[in-house]
Amino acid sequence: MTPSLLAVDWGTTSLRGALLDAMGQVIEERAFMLGIMNVPAGAFADTFETSFGDWMAATPGLRCLMAGMVGSRQGWLEAPYCACPAGFADIAGALAWVRPGQIAIVPGLRCEQAERQGEHLADRVPDVMRGEETQVFGAMQALGLSDACLVLPGTHSKWVQVRAGRIEHFSTFMTGEMFALLRQHSILARTLPAQDTALDEAAFLRGVRRALASGSLMQTAFSTRTLALFDQASPEQLLSYLSGLVIGEELRVQARLGAKHVVLIASVDLARRYQLALAECGVSCVIPGVHITWAGLFAIAKSMSMS
Amino acid sequence: MTPSLLAVDWGTTSLRGALLDAMGQVIEERAFMLGIMNVPAGAFADTFETSFGDWMAATPGLRCLMAGMVGSRQGWLEAPYCACPAGFADIAGALAWVRPGQIAIVPGLRCEQAERQGEHLADRVPDVMRGEETQVFGAMQALGLSDACLVLPGTHSKWVQVRAGRIEHFSTFMTGEMFALLRQHSILARTLPAQDTALDEAAFLRGVRRALASGSLMQTAFSTRTLALFDQASPEQLLSYLSGLVIGEELRVQARLGAKHVVLIASVDLARRYQLALAECGVSCVIPGVHITWAGLFAIAKSMSMS
Repeated sequence: MTPSLLAVDWGTTSLRGALLDAMGQVIEERAFMLGIMNVPAGAFADTFETSFGDWMAATPGLRCLMAGMVGSRQGWLEAPYCACPAGFADIAGALAWVRPGQIAIVPGLRCEQAERQGEHLADRVPDVMRGEETQVFGAMQALGLSDACLVLPGTHSKWVQVRAGRIEHFSTFMTGEMFALLRQHSILARTLPAQDTALDEAAFLRGVRRALASGSLMQTAFSTRTLALFDQASPEQLLSYLSGLVIGEELRVQARLGAKHVVLIASVDLARRYQLALAECGVSCVIPGVHITWAGLFAIAKSMSMS
Repeated sequence: MTPSLLAVDWGTTSLRGALLDAMGQVIEERAFMLGIMNVPAGAFADTFETSFGDWMAATPGLRCLMAGMVGSRQGWLEAPYCACPAGFADIAGALAWVRPGQIAIVPGLRCEQAERQGEHLADRVPDVMRGEETQVFGAMQALGLSDACLVLPGTHSKWVQVRAGRIEHFSTFMTGEMFALLRQHSILARTLPAQDTALDEAAFLRGVRRALASGSLMQTAFSTRTLALFDQASPEQLLSYLSGLVIGEELRVQARLGAKHVVLIASVDLARRYQLALAECGVSCVIPGVHITWAGLFAIAKSMSMS
């Protein structure tokens, strides 16, 4: 099996790479705790060499495509955000080449959030993603779709609209970060268990329902404290309840959009939570079964060869 | 001027007291950084004696009424929450007596938040306040009102409905705490100024408008980061913008209630922000001009003398 692409996912906290064959199948994989936060400025080339130099040397002419925060201002080389709508061709045409013809970074995407403002002129603010665009393209490829609504839960959850193979619009929610802030640094932390505990589905869904029926997490979150104050829930239940409040908040806003079927890209634990919460909104989901970042990088590389 | 009441506001971070005359006017005031968090368990009586013992000794028979977290489980003596609706008489009848006939603690209030849940049975969760009830009664007294919607911004903002002189319902928003969490512990902290800066009204109102037009702070908050990423606002502007997003979130939910006039109980800085934000919603406000905690404690004491 001759390697055709070195696919690299270089994020904030970790560095992962895979050698892909001509069909996009994984030949070999590696992972390092060498996220861009752990790499000193100027040391990206050395880190790359140490991590993947032998693979590059073993296959002369091997190309490498990288996705993730490695293309941010704090990364190896800044890959300016590509404006939406953006598809394979737009991204392939906007790669940031670290070594021309050999190593390139996939750009992140930007779009604008414009809101109705009553009598006021609509104000526009930018939104961004970096890394998720590659996962989205990988998932679309793997599922054989050209139109979809995709959900990528996480520290900063993304909801992505793809039409005719191009990412048309997306929106970021600070869901995972908000949960961590409330869980670790707020007054709620006092009555939550110190260690994470297994999901209590009933308590989680109670939180989801409350979030869906109310107007703001700032209001619902306080009930995590009062339920403890009146001994109406155990610390373990409250942790699942808070998780439901936060995820339910995201779904309350997005449920307005009316998608009845979404593509869900998440870790096993988050996927379970989102499946439960989405079902509560009457939304079904499909989870791609392959390594979508590798699939996405392979698809982008392939579109380059064809152009 | 013979003192008729020692009014004490004993909160989480500070201890304040005032000697009031027979008309409720302040004769003398004291403040200490001796909130209940700084008082060891069992040391409340000593702390009280050191702070106000001379005043109590100078006027034999002087009564003392205390409000605030001193009545919580972590305080001097737990004063169980009084159920809403609750007026002067309900509170006066539920005082927790530290020294019978002499020193008493005003109980906090509880109510229930029930939400429409579509096809689901309405779930109820408790809400609580401790200290604000006294401010509310003081403000109603000072303004000569028996019906009002009151707003008490802060770490945990309260919106309070008073009808026929009784607190009928209230709702808590973790507004101030959410701002502090985002400002200090979130990814947004990286692009905000280290020190607090003067309010930029235009940036603040931009945040308020965005919050009013959107669905969740979890979504709007991320724009604080992206505006920085594209250099579309200075760090100082972003701090005011984030403040507008958070306060606007509270108002978006409460604006539904339809009150066109509210009583605003806030510090000077917060009062300015809420006035600006409320005006954006077409809501006018009045700010009581007296020390309302003292007025509230005096009113409760007076209702006891009459009963």
